[in-house]
Amino acid sequence: MVWGWVTDFFTYETTKSVVVKSWSVGIINRIVQVLIIAYFVGWVFIHEKAYQVFDSGIESSVMTKVKGFGYHQERIMDVADYVFPQQGAAVFCIMTKLIITENQFQGKCAENGKQYKCQDDFDCEEFVDSILTNGRITGACLRSEDQSQCEVEGWCPVENDRVVIEPMIDVQNFTIFIKNSIRFPLFNITRGNFPSSMTSDAIRSCKYHPKSNPFCPIFAVGDILEHTGQNVVELAKKGGEIGINIEWKCNLDLDIEYCVPKYSFTRLDAPFEKNAISKGFNFRFAKYYKTQNGTEYRTLHKAFAIRFDVMVTGQAGKFNTVPTLINLVAAFTSIGLGTVLCDLILLNFLKGAAQYKAKKFEEVSEAQIEASLIPSPSSQMSTKEAWILPFFCLRNFVELNCLFLEN
Amino acid sequence: MVWGWVTDFFTYETTKSVVVKSWSVGIINRIVQVLIIAYFVGWVFIHEKAYQVFDSGIESSVMTKVKGFGYHQERIMDVADYVFPQQGAAVFCIMTKLIITENQFQGKCAENGKQYKCQDDFDCEEFVDSILTNGRITGACLRSEDQSQCEVEGWCPVENDRVVIEPMIDVQNFTIFIKNSIRFPLFNITRGNFPSSMTSDAIRSCKYHPKSNPFCPIFAVGDILEHTGQNVVELAKKGGEIGINIEWKCNLDLDIEYCVPKYSFTRLDAPFEKNAISKGFNFRFAKYYKTQNGTEYRTLHKAFAIRFDVMVTGQAGKFNTVPTLINLVAAFTSIGLGTVLCDLILLNFLKGAAQYKAKKFEEVSEAQIEASLIPSPSSQMSTKEAWILPFFCLRNFVELNCLFLEN
Amino acid sequence: MVWGWVTDFFTYETTKSVVVKSWSVGIINRIVQVLIIAYFVGWVFIHEKAYQVFDSGIESSVMTKVKGFGYHQERIMDVADYVFPQQGAAVFCIMTKLIITENQFQGKCAENGKQYKCQDDFDCEEFVDSILTNGRITGACLRSEDQSQCEVEGWCPVENDRVVIEPMIDVQNFTIFIKNSIRFPLFNITRGNFPSSMTSDAIRSCKYHPKSNPFCPIFAVGDILEHTGQNVVELAKKGGEIGINIEWKCNLDLDIEYCVPKYSFTRLDAPFEKNAISKGFNFRFAKYYKTQNGTEYRTLHKAFAIRFDVMVTGQAGKFNTVPTLINLVAAFTSIGLGTVLCDLILLNFLKGAAQYKAKKFEEVSEAQIEASLIPSPSSQMSTKEAWILPFFCLRNFVELNCLFLEN
Repeated sequence: MVWGWVTDFFTYETTKSVVVKSWSVGIINRIVQVLIIAYFVGWVFIHEKAYQVFDSGIESSVMTKVKGFGYHQERIMDVADYVFPQQGAAVFCIMTKLIITENQFQGKCAENGKQYKCQDDFDCEEFVDSILTNGRITGACLRSEDQSQCEVEGWCPVENDRVVIEPMIDVQNFTIFIKNSIRFPLFNITRGNFPSSMTSDAIRSCKYHPKSNPFCPIFAVGDILEHTGQNVVELAKKGGEIGINIEWKCNLDLDIEYCVPKYSFTRLDAPFEKNAISKGFNFRFAKYYKTQNGTEYRTLHKAFAIRFDVMVTGQAGKFNTVPTLINLVAAFTSIGLGTVLCDLILLNFLKGAAQYKAKKFEEVSEAQIEASLIPSPSSQMSTKEAWILPFFCLRNFVELNCLFLEN
Repeated sequence: MVWGWVTDFFTYETTKSVVVKSWSVGIINRIVQVLIIAYFVGWVFIHEKAYQVFDSGIESSVMTKVKGFGYHQERIMDVADYVFPQQGAAVFCIMTKLIITENQFQGKCAENGKQYKCQDDFDCEEFVDSILTNGRITGACLRSEDQSQCEVEGWCPVENDRVVIEPMIDVQNFTIFIKNSIRFPLFNITRGNFPSSMTSDAIRSCKYHPKSNPFCPIFAVGDILEHTGQNVVELAKKGGEIGINIEWKCNLDLDIEYCVPKYSFTRLDAPFEKNAISKGFNFRFAKYYKTQNGTEYRTLHKAFAIRFDVMVTGQAGKFNTVPTLINLVAAFTSIGLGTVLCDLILLNFLKGAAQYKAKKFEEVSEAQIEASLIPSPSSQMSTKEAWILPFFCLRNFVELNCLFLEN
Repeated sequence: MVWGWVTDFFTYETTKSVVVKSWSVGIINRIVQVLIIAYFVGWVFIHEKAYQVFDSGIESSVMTKVKGFGYHQERIMDVADYVFPQQGAAVFCIMTKLIITENQFQGKCAENGKQYKCQDDFDCEEFVDSILTNGRITGACLRSEDQSQCEVEGWCPVENDRVVIEPMIDVQNFTIFIKNSIRFPLFNITRGNFPSSMTSDAIRSCKYHPKSNPFCPIFAVGDILEHTGQNVVELAKKGGEIGINIEWKCNLDLDIEYCVPKYSFTRLDAPFEKNAISKGFNFRFAKYYKTQNGTEYRTLHKAFAIRFDVMVTGQAGKFNTVPTLINLVAAFTSIGLGTVLCDLILLNFLKGAAQYKAKKFEEVSEAQIEASLIPSPSSQMSTKEAWILPFFCLRNFVELNCLFLEN
C-alpha cells in the first residue's frame, strides 16, 4: 500500500499535445516566438539590463567653492561678501544686487511708498495689522511739510526698495568648483566627480565644457547661464534659481573608470516666468552693530541672488544571478504565449477549423459520466475513503492537481 | 532531408484539451475567470494604472518668504531678525523666544546654577571636563560674600537660561509664502505651485485654506499649527518642528491643469512629546562686536524656534505601450489560472471524479515502453544519430520541447 | 438556440495530460518542484518578505546639538563660535582651525605670495582677471624697500593662509546629540531615535556604542572618527566630511518596539584622498564691524572644518493580502516550470524516448484535414455564419480560445 503511494508519487505528468503540420500556422507560430525572443533579448536583457541588480539609494556629498571678484556700488566684493551660506553647501546663493539701508535703529518713523500717504490718522488705520509694510503701522499720520506719511514702529529709517541699482554683472566671470563624492551602499563603490589622476594645475586651470572638457569640476557662472538659455543681466537684476544636475549612471560590469558623472543645467523657477508676481529670488538679511553706548543698530540688506542647487542622482547596476535566472525563466515561459494567437487563428479562421477543433478538444459531458457511473464500484470506494481526502488534497494542492487519488 | 527539417520546423504545437460539459465546474470556471478579469481591470489597470510609466524622480525647488512683525522684549522684530537662515530655503526657523546674554568677553567668571555652588576647590574638581556647563570649569571655587560658585573660563558673564521670558505669540499672524516649482525629468514637465493666471493682487491678498482656497501659496502660521493640532503658546515657548508636505500626484494623460499640489501638515518631532528631555527645539548663536580698542565681544542668543520643513514628493504617470502590453499579456495568461481550482474540484469532489480523471490522464508506464522497445528499430536509430542530439536540443531548448527529433 | 449557447458557455476546459510512470523522470520532476518551492518559501517569502507592502518614502526630521569647549589661539570657543550653521540642522560644520585676518578695510594694498613679486607693472598685468588672488589685481606693482608685490583692490590687508596654526584637537571630546524622528506615511507610523522611556539623566550621561549602548543618541566626535578609521589630528588640520547614516528597517508585523535605528559612519570625501588638490574642507566667512565714524570693516576667517552629514534612510514592511496573493499565485504557477526540464529529458535522453513522444504528441497534417473536408457540410455552415465570427471571437479572445463556434 505504502509502496503504491510512493510509486504513484514519483511519476511525471506532462500535457498531451497536438502537433499541427500546417505551413500557415507553423510560420505564424515561429514568427511570434521570434518576436517574443527579440523582445526579451533586445529590450529586457540588453536595454533594460534585466540581468543586473540595481542600487539607486545613492549616498552623495557635495562641497562647493565660488571664486571671483565683483564691483558693486563702488566696492569690491569677494566670496565672503556675496556667497550665502558661506559653508560651501550644495545649495548656495550668489548675491547679484544689494539694496542697503544703513544705520537702522529701533523706533518710530514714516513709512515710505505712495499708498501710505495720509491726511490724518484715519487714513492710516486701515493699514494696522498689514504685513506688507516695513514696520508695524501705528495708525498715526506723521505730518511734515513736504510729505505726510503713516507712522511705523520698528527699525528706522525704513527701507526703500524702489531705488534702481545696477546689478553686479561680474557674476558671469565667477567660477564654481564642485566636489561631489558618491557611494553606492549596495556595492560599496565610492566615486569622485573628477579623476584622481588630474594634477593640481589641470584642475586650477580647466573650465567645464560638455564636449571638450566634460570632467572638469570648475564651472563658469556665465557658461551655466548660457546652457540654461538665461540672460545674465536679467537674472542678475531679479535673481533666480539654477539647478545643476549631476547624474551618475554606472554599469559596474564594465571597468569602474566608465562610472563618470554627467552634468546638466536647468532653470528651476521656470514655471513662474509668466507669473504676475514674485519673479526671481530675493531675501533680506541684516548686519548688527553696536554704538559706543551699547545701543544696537543694523544695516538691512535686500539681496537679489542667483541660487544654485546641486542635485545628485544616480543608479548603479551589476550582474547578479537572481534577477538573471528569474528573467530567463520569464523569457522561456513567455515563448509559449504565442499559442494564444495561433489557437485563435487555427480554430477559427483556418480552412478545416472544425476538424482541428475536433482533434484538439475531447468532450466529456455529465450525461456520459453519469451513465458510466451506475454500475461502477469506484464511487463507493471514494465515499469509503472520504476521510483521506483532506490529506490528499493538501498534497495535491502543492502538486497543483490530484493525480493518483484512487489508482 | 533538409526539406524534412524545414517542414518539421514550421509546425505548430498546441495542448490537447478535455472539454467538460458540467454545469457545476463550468459555472465555477467562469466565476473564477470573471474574478480574475475584475482584479486586472479594476485593480491593476484602473486603480494602479498599470498602463502608465511612472516618474518619481522629481526635481523640486522651494523658496520661502516669511512676513509679519512681532513684539519681543519691547522690541519690534522683522523678518531679518527672526528668520534663520535668511536665504528663504525649504528649511527655516522662526524664532519665538530669545534668551539674550549681552556683552560677553573672553575671561573667567562664576558659573551659575545650584549644582555649581561650592565651599572650596574640591567641590568643583568633579566638573572639570564637563560639557554641560557654560564654559570650561577651571576647578577653582570663586568665593564671594553672597554666593560661592565654581569658576569657568570662556565667554563671561555666563548665560542664565532659567529666566522666564514671554514668547512672541505674534508668530501666529506671520505668513509664509511658498514658491515651489517641480520638474518630472522623464516627461520634461515643469509645474509651479500656483497658477500663472493668478494676479498680483490675488496672490497678495489670499490665504491658504484646504477647501476654499487650496492653491493659494500663502499660509498663516496660526492656520498651519491648527491643522497639526498644536497649541501656539506651548510651541512658541518650547519650539518645535512642523512639516509642510507638498504632494504632486499627476496623471499626465489628463490635462496638465489637473497636475496640482496637495498640502498637508504634520508635527515632525511628535515622537518625542512624551520624552523626559529635549522637547522642543532651540539653538544658540552669537552676534559679534568690537570695542573701540579692538577687543571682540559678543551677545549670545539662546533661540527657541519653530522649524518649518517644506518637503516635496511627487509622482507622474503617462500612458506607455510597453507596460500596457506587458500587463495585458499578464492579464490574459492569468485567466488560465482558474483551472488550478477547477481541476481540484473536478478531480476530487465531483460525482464521477474517477471517470473525469480517466479522461484527463493517459498513463504510460516504463514497463509498457520497454515491452514495445524490444522489436523496435528506432532505438538503434537514436543511438546512431546521437551526435546530432546537442544541436537538436539547443533548438529545442528555445522551443521548450523536442518535437521532431525522429520524425 | 440561446440555451445551446448558454450550455456551451458554462463548460470547463482542462488540458489532457500524459502520466509517465517512470522512476527516473518522476524523481527529477519532484526534485525540481522541491527546489522551486524552496526558492519561493526561503528566498521570496522569508528573505524578501514578498507577503508585505513596503514604504520607503520615509519622512524624516533631524535636529543636532553639539556640546564641548575647545582652546584655539588662546581663546575658549563654545558652540556659538565653532558650529556652522547654528540652527542644529542635519548638515553642520565644526570648525577645527581658523586663519583670521583682522581689520580688513576696502582699499588697495599688496598681494602676498611669491608668484606676485614684481619688478614693474608689466609683471603684474598677466594676473589681471585672475580669480585665484585675494583681491582684484590692478596691474600695478607696489614698490617697497624690502619686497615689491603686485597691487590688489579689495579688502586690505589681504589674507595670508600659509601660516601654520595648531588645529583645535579638543574637537574629539565634543559630543553630538542627534534627535531624529521619522514617519512612514503609508502606515502612519512615527518613531524617534531614542525610546521615550529613557530618563533625562540616562540621556545626559550616556554615550553611543555600537554594542553596549546602540540607542544612546549622544555621539563623541572622537568615537565617530574612530569608527570611520580617520586620524583626528589630520582631519582637524585639513577638514573633511563625515557621514552619519541612520538606517530604519522596520518589520511592522512585529512589535513596534523592534523598529529601531541603526547607525553607521563613513568618510564621505574618501574618493578624493588621493587627489592632488582640494583635500579636506574649508570655507571663508567674515564678521562685519563699523568704526565710530561709520566705515565698515571686517575680520575674514578661513575656517577648516569637519562637516557632518546626518543621512536617514528607511523602509517599513507590513503584511498585505494583495502582494501575498500575487506571490502565492506566482509560486503555484512556477511549480509547473519543472516540466520544461523533464520534457527535455523524457523526450530526448530516456530509453524509449520515441515511444514517449508518440504518446505525448498527436499529429494532424493539412493533408488529412483537407481529405476529410471534401464531403463535409460544416464548412458551408461556417461561411453562412461568418457574420457571427467577430462576436464569437471577442468572447473567445477573453476565454483565450474559440471553443464552441460550431458545436
